[in-house]
Amino acid sequence: MSIFCFANNQIQAIDKAGVPVTDLLVQRGYGIFDFLRVAGDKPLFIDDHLDRFFHSAEKMRLTIPQTREDIKNIVKELIQKNQLTYSGIRMIIAGGDAPDGYTIEHPHLIIIQAPLAEPTIHLPETGIKLATYSYQRQIPDVKTTDYLMAVWLQPWMKQQGADDILYYYNGIISECPRSNFFLVTKENVLVTAQQNMLNGITRKNILKVCEAHSIPFQIRDININELKEAKEAFITSSTKRIIPVQQIDEFVFKSDYVSSVAKNIYELLVQLEH
Amino acid sequence: MSIFCFANNQIQAIDKAGVPVTDLLVQRGYGIFDFLRVAGDKPLFIDDHLDRFFHSAEKMRLTIPQTREDIKNIVKELIQKNQLTYSGIRMIIAGGDAPDGYTIEHPHLIIIQAPLAEPTIHLPETGIKLATYSYQRQIPDVKTTDYLMAVWLQPWMKQQGADDILYYYNGIISECPRSNFFLVTKENVLVTAQQNMLNGITRKNILKVCEAHSIPFQIRDININELKEAKEAFITSSTKRIIPVQQIDEFVFKSDYVSSVAKNIYELLVQLEH
Repeated sequence: MSIFCFANNQIQAIDKAGVPVTDLLVQRGYGIFDFLRVAGDKPLFIDDHLDRFFHSAEKMRLTIPQTREDIKNIVKELIQKNQLTYSGIRMIIAGGDAPDGYTIEHPHLIIIQAPLAEPTIHLPETGIKLATYSYQRQIPDVKTTDYLMAVWLQPWMKQQGADDILYYYNGIISECPRSNFFLVTKENVLVTAQQNMLNGITRKNILKVCEAHSIPFQIRDININELKEAKEAFITSSTKRIIPVQQIDEFVFKSDYVSSVAKNIYELLVQLEH
Repeated sequence: MSIFCFANNQIQAIDKAGVPVTDLLVQRGYGIFDFLRVAGDKPLFIDDHLDRFFHSAEKMRLTIPQTREDIKNIVKELIQKNQLTYSGIRMIIAGGDAPDGYTIEHPHLIIIQAPLAEPTIHLPETGIKLATYSYQRQIPDVKTTDYLMAVWLQPWMKQQGADDILYYYNGIISECPRSNFFLVTKENVLVTAQQNMLNGITRKNILKVCEAHSIPFQIRDININELKEAKEAFITSSTKRIIPVQQIDEFVFKSDYVSSVAKNIYELLVQLEH
């Protein structure tokens, strides 16, 4: 049985849905998206994701033909029709057909739902390895569909024995391709980047629980040299909540994750979802 | 009557052809292309374009399912079926369906033909205005589908009263979004960028005719401060051959294009097409 999606202004089977070959998304890579996790029939933090989606669209001058309520209703209908136990929803705005192949005239909405593994109840105990790479994403506060560098770097990343990439530029850490980055200083202060990265919804939720539970944090530039001084590090995303980092390049963290700051925050994030 | 294109491994009407919503080109902006001009039934410099197309694909780790001969035959068939007086051919390799939304597994070919205005017999006498913008295209020697910045900058460019954008980075000129850039020094030496830009086929042909006709040229970094010292400037592309530049930002060239180096080269380029 095929999964349903929304494309060409209708709900239809995903294997029948295509983006016109003349679309700006296909010809010029011009589009934005957002991605959220769905627990059963509950789209998590959908208002935060829609806020960011509309911000991305506005900055990229892509007029969304639907209202927020329209989009919520389409998401609801897809969830009901597809009946997936656990899933992710991807909302895309494609640049649309441009008679001159260059000018934005007819942006349009695509919504795709796909099965997703449910994150574990507690923070995973095994950390991953990150490989640092000097790169700055273009228009970084917008969730564009541009993952050219991230996809291109996959073989390089595997050669490094790494599980993900950590971008930095001019010595300042920004983010991973699909996750925000946090470190915990020796003084037990949580630190995350302040600029040149995407404003993740999980990052936002973490800062919220830090405020609510008086966990000390700083939002500021992170120099790449600080990594070696850090006590622990982790990455965050809507898909996985938090993944601990065990190693960055050659530097191995000595953290005991069972007693980590990340573990504490993870439990608070789980509570936020209910 | 609909125009025919090649997509989903077959020749079909363009309005029926779509890229799957799950394709890496749609979800991650991962694709390359090339574009060539067709005079009647003659695809111009197709071997040069195929050389670059296969180079782009190889560097981006996109295996093209067809051979060069296959592609030439499809192009020939499209030209015969569509019977356009003057046209352009766009060949795209899309990243393809990725079960994990990230890993390249099934790249596929799309070929689109569309009507195109025939360039004038002689160099246009009116020059355009360029607005400089600090930006470096990612993986610049590859013709990727990433035109995010170029499309995004269109309203800004129009505000400047400009017709096109000239990218520079760290003080060095690279290219326009869809054209190479040349200037002519006071000593009548043609200069074009040596790095961080796309190797245009028209650029290549210009360097070829310069060699053949002993027109002095240099391939080297162009400092943005050199613009004010230049005698003339022009941009080049497969679509237009050469367009003279009358103004860059506030600086207006005093060139008389009728007697320009560009005019001479333009005539030689026209001859190359026969």
